[in-house]
Amino acid sequence: MAESSVSPTPLLKDELDIVIPTIRNLDFLEMWRPFFQQYHLIIVQDGDPNKIIKVPEGFDYELYNRIDINRILGPKASCISFKDSACRCFGYMVSKKKYIYTIDDDCFVAKNPSGKDINALEQHIKNLLCPSTPYFFNTLYDPYRDGADFVRGYPFSLREGVPTAVSHGLWLNIPDYDAPTQLVKPRERNTRYVDAVMTIPKGTLFPMCGMNLAFNRELIGPAMYFGLMGDGQPIGRYDDMWAGWCIKVICDHLGLGVKTGLPYIWHSKASNPFVNLKKEYKGIYWQEELIPFFQSATLPKDCTTVQKCYIELSKQVRAKLGKVDDYFLKLADAMVTWIEAWDELNPSGGELVLNGAGK
Amino acid sequence: MAESSVSPTPLLKDELDIVIPTIRNLDFLEMWRPFFQQYHLIIVQDGDPNKIIKVPEGFDYELYNRIDINRILGPKASCISFKDSACRCFGYMVSKKKYIYTIDDDCFVAKNPSGKDINALEQHIKNLLCPSTPYFFNTLYDPYRDGADFVRGYPFSLREGVPTAVSHGLWLNIPDYDAPTQLVKPRERNTRYVDAVMTIPKGTLFPMCGMNLAFNRELIGPAMYFGLMGDGQPIGRYDDMWAGWCIKVICDHLGLGVKTGLPYIWHSKASNPFVNLKKEYKGIYWQEELIPFFQSATLPKDCTTVQKCYIELSKQVRAKLGKVDDYFLKLADAMVTWIEAWDELNPSGGELVLNGAGK
Repeated sequence: MAESSVSPTPLLKDELDIVIPTIRNLDFLEMWRPFFQQYHLIIVQDGDPNKIIKVPEGFDYELYNRIDINRILGPKASCISFKDSACRCFGYMVSKKKYIYTIDDDCFVAKNPSGKDINALEQHIKNLLCPSTPYFFNTLYDPYRDGADFVRGYPFSLREGVPTAVSHGLWLNIPDYDAPTQLVKPRERNTRYVDAVMTIPKGTLFPMCGMNLAFNRELIGPAMYFGLMGDGQPIGRYDDMWAGWCIKVICDHLGLGVKTGLPYIWHSKASNPFVNLKKEYKGIYWQEELIPFFQSATLPKDCTTVQKCYIELSKQVRAKLGKVDDYFLKLADAMVTWIEAWDELNPSGGELVLNGAGK
Repeated sequence: MAESSVSPTPLLKDELDIVIPTIRNLDFLEMWRPFFQQYHLIIVQDGDPNKIIKVPEGFDYELYNRIDINRILGPKASCISFKDSACRCFGYMVSKKKYIYTIDDDCFVAKNPSGKDINALEQHIKNLLCPSTPYFFNTLYDPYRDGADFVRGYPFSLREGVPTAVSHGLWLNIPDYDAPTQLVKPRERNTRYVDAVMTIPKGTLFPMCGMNLAFNRELIGPAMYFGLMGDGQPIGRYDDMWAGWCIKVICDHLGLGVKTGLPYIWHSKASNPFVNLKKEYKGIYWQEELIPFFQSATLPKDCTTVQKCYIELSKQVRAKLGKVDDYFLKLADAMVTWIEAWDELNPSGGELVLNGAGK
C-alpha cells in the first residue's frame, strides 16, 4: 500500500520541489507524470547553456543554466560545480520550499514485488514526516510503519524519536557501484526488493547517493552542499558522498535523523566505468583519510544551527584535510562561499535553532 | 535459495549444537525434523526436574534438568536461573562445539514469500560464516550476499570485514513485544518479510531476542550469559536483553560483528501480557539507566579475551549499577561465577585472544 497508489491530492504539493540536474531532454518525466505532475520542478541544466532542454508538456518548472547561476550568484557562483551533477545543489538553494526531492534523469518508476508502480515520492514524504530512531536499533526496522512497533527491550524514553531530516532511497536494476566494482561485475543487477526503511544509527556514516534522495530543507538544507566536482576539479562522483558525510555528522550533532531503504527507483543506465574510474580514482584513496576524519569529527555545543555547524566543519576540513591535498583548502573555501550564498538567497528563517544540539 | 532448500549434508553438522530451554514435551521438533535431525540437541529442562520431557524419536540429544545443573556446577549453579528461559545459557556452557543455535519451543518453521519452508539454521550458518561490516553502513545491506556488494563510496580498506560472532534472527506472526505493547496491540502480527541481513554498526546497541539466535561460541560464548532471572529474582524477560547489551559492547571492543535480519521463524504463541508485565516492570524503568550505562561503557586495551572483557564489565556493573538496585550487585557476582564455571567446563582454548581488541 505504502508505495503503490497515486494519492488523489499529492502530499505536500505546495511544500516540495523536485530538483533535477540534466544535460538532455527530460523525456524520462513522461513515466513520472502521474507522480510528479502536480509538483513544481527545479531543473538545473549542466554543460552548454545554449542547448535547449525540452521538458514534456504540462509540467510546472523553472530552469537554470550556467548563465543563470552566474547571474544570480555573481562571484559566489564559484561554489557551484560545472559539468558534474553536483550542480544540482544550486536547485536546493533557490528553492523556497520546505522539502526537496532530487532524482537523476536516468531513473524510472520501479515496480514493487506485486507488480505495482512505486510512488517513490510518496514514500519519501512518509519517511520525512515520521520520526527517526538514531539512538537505539529496532530489529523490526521502522517502528512507525503500519504493522510494526518497537520491540521488547527498546527504551521507552527513546520511542518518541527525533525529526527526520533525510530520506535516502535505493535503486533496482543498476546498483550504485564504484568504477572498480562496475569493471569487475559488469552484469550485476540489483533484483532484491528489501521491504524496509530504517534509521542510520548515530555515529555511523553511510554512502549517500544523490540519485533518489529527499530531505527537509529547513532542517538540513544548508549542509546539502555537493562540493566542487567536475570541470577544473581533480575528482568527480564524490559530490553526494561528500554531502552525505557532512549531513550525517551535523544530523548526529543536532539530534536529527537519516533514514534509508524504501523507496526504490529503477536505475536504467550504468555510467561508463572507464570514465568513472578517471573521475573517482583520487577519491578512492582520499576517502580512506576522509572517512576517519568524519568519523572522529565533533562539533562544539554552540553550533546550534546548520549554518554554524557547516562553517565549523569547513574549518576542520581546512585544518585537517588540507594536508591530504590542496584541493581540500579550495573545498573548505567553497563550503564557506556556499553558506554565504545560501544565506543571501534565504535571508529569513534560514537559521533554525535546534534543541537537540550537543545531545 | 538461501533459506528454502534442505542441504543433503547439513552445514557444520559436527560443529554446532542446538540449545533448547523447555518445560514441556518437544513436539515442536517434528516440524523442524528435516532441518535439525542431523544436529545434536542440548535440552535444558526448566522447572520441576521430575517431569519427563518427551523428545520425538530420532533426534540426537542430551538433556539437563536442575538436578544435573546443580551436580555439574556445584555451588556455581547459583549463576544459572531457574523458572526462566535464561537457564538456556547452561547449554552454551556444556556444549563443546564451535557454534550454537538456540530456539524457543513455541517457534516453528516459517515460509518465505514464495511459500517455501525457511531453513533458519542454514541461514544463521551463512550469516556466521561470512564477515560483518560494523565500521560503515552499506545501503544495499549485506555486501557479501549473492547479487549484492559494497556500494560506491564504501571505503575499500573496510571491505574485508570482521569475523561475525552473532546472528540474530527475526520472527513472523507474533512479534517480540514487551508487555505494554502486547496489551495495547493484542492483535498485531508481523507479516512483513524483509529480505535482508545487516550488520549492527559499532557503537549501536540493539534489543537481542533469544528466541532465534545463533553465535560463534569460540568468539563470544563466555559473554552469552543470560543473567539472573525468574525464581527468586526481581525481574524476568530481560535475560536475552542483558546478554545482548553485554555481547555488543564486547564485540565492539574486540572487533567482532553482530548481524540481524534473516532468518525468520514462525512465532506461534504470545505469552500472557499480564504475567509478562509483572516480570518486566522493573526492567522497564531500570533499562532507562542500563542502556546509557552500556552506551558509554568502554573496556581497557588489555581486555584482549572475552573472559577479561566480561570480568571488567562485571566490575563496572557493580560500581555503576549497584546504586540503581542491589540486584545488580548480585548480578555482578553472578557474572564472575559464570566465567569461573565456564572456564572450569572449558579448560582449554577458552581464551581466544583477538587481534581486533581495542580497535
